[in-house]
Amino acid sequence: MGKVKLDISMSLDGFVAGPEPTLEQPLGAGGERLHEWAFAAQSWREQHGLDAGEPGLDSDVVEEGNPSAGATVMGRRMFSGGAGRWEDDPNRNAWWGDDPPFHHPVFVLTHHAREPLAMDGGTTFTFVTEGIEAAVAQARAAAGDGDVLVAGGGDVARQALAAGLLDELQVHVVPILLGAGARLFEGTTGTLERTRALESPTGVMHLRYRPA
Amino acid sequence: MGKVKLDISMSLDGFVAGPEPTLEQPLGAGGERLHEWAFAAQSWREQHGLDAGEPGLDSDVVEEGNPSAGATVMGRRMFSGGAGRWEDDPNRNAWWGDDPPFHHPVFVLTHHAREPLAMDGGTTFTFVTEGIEAAVAQARAAAGDGDVLVAGGGDVARQALAAGLLDELQVHVVPILLGAGARLFEGTTGTLERTRALESPTGVMHLRYRPA
Repeated sequence: MGKVKLDISMSLDGFVAGPEPTLEQPLGAGGERLHEWAFAAQSWREQHGLDAGEPGLDSDVVEEGNPSAGATVMGRRMFSGGAGRWEDDPNRNAWWGDDPPFHHPVFVLTHHAREPLAMDGGTTFTFVTEGIEAAVAQARAAAGDGDVLVAGGGDVARQALAAGLLDELQVHVVPILLGAGARLFEGTTGTLERTRALESPTGVMHLRYRPA
Repeated sequence: MGKVKLDISMSLDGFVAGPEPTLEQPLGAGGERLHEWAFAAQSWREQHGLDAGEPGLDSDVVEEGNPSAGATVMGRRMFSGGAGRWEDDPNRNAWWGDDPPFHHPVFVLTHHAREPLAMDGGTTFTFVTEGIEAAVAQARAAAGDGDVLVAGGGDVARQALAAGLLDELQVHVVPILLGAGARLFEGTTGTLERTRALESPTGVMHLRYRPA
């Protein structure tokens, strides 16, 4: 059976989104700076149908996550940010286009039931209203021997951590201070074992931990 | 002129002390776990008159801080924790004994004026009531060409950061989650340049940054 892995970018001051997030701007004020290292990476740009990316460590880190993942769990706000153009307003921006970069089943934790959504390239969005444990269980079943990637945002990551569902945490520590916003960690105690540390020339630290 | 350097241990979830700190237990519940890596290090133990410490990276990191430091700034709670036995209750525990490990002038930020306190081994405690800028300015003057070390706790670190007084931040990221307590970062925005990353076999990451 695969592992359940959190993979998320966090500012040095602990935020995974800036203040005042909206459905239109789900990363909040300044929050897109958390992902500039990935946006510039060759593998990320290829996954999103773009060229002119940078090869190197950051690109390798983005790339290694995908092949082993058989399913993804995310929150409603992240889904709406990425898939916004299929929502009510067709003029809204969306990160993912017609062919989202997952190419596997994605389970969206939400309070509002809706029909599954099948996209080009093998990505399906299934909406789960029964909570984080149900979302991860469905993702595990869909992933088979593959890993389940918990992609964020902060709420979903915190719920998965608090419920003891994570086998691995990969935190990309970005050298910025957002000052306010959505924190990755809050209210959960524990001891971790650091299993990997990669130092990117962009200033990002890619840190991997296993709950002890 | 020397640099003003913050040097502080932080849990992966961003705390520099656990919840419910008191003058008797200034690190709060579980907060001493932030410093176990240092307490076990040979150089730390030698500085505190103890033997049987571990040599290695953590010990080297503790050791390298001291020679260049000409003065230290700290908060009142940290002072009381370390120097507690000279306070009102002679039976209180104290970290530092008669010969505190600083051997240079220490400036304690406090709301209560009091006479300076001269200890064995060259450590003097001077109490500053005019705020963080005054404390750092006095420490700079006392340090001459040496560095000023901002030792914590979280309040003093945040004030120094917010006032733009820091030339360097060294954060020892400890692989634990405290869940609650005193955060290192809050309310300050900015971009940092990562200047060093050392990966300790104990799981601690020693990360150095310069405000950009």
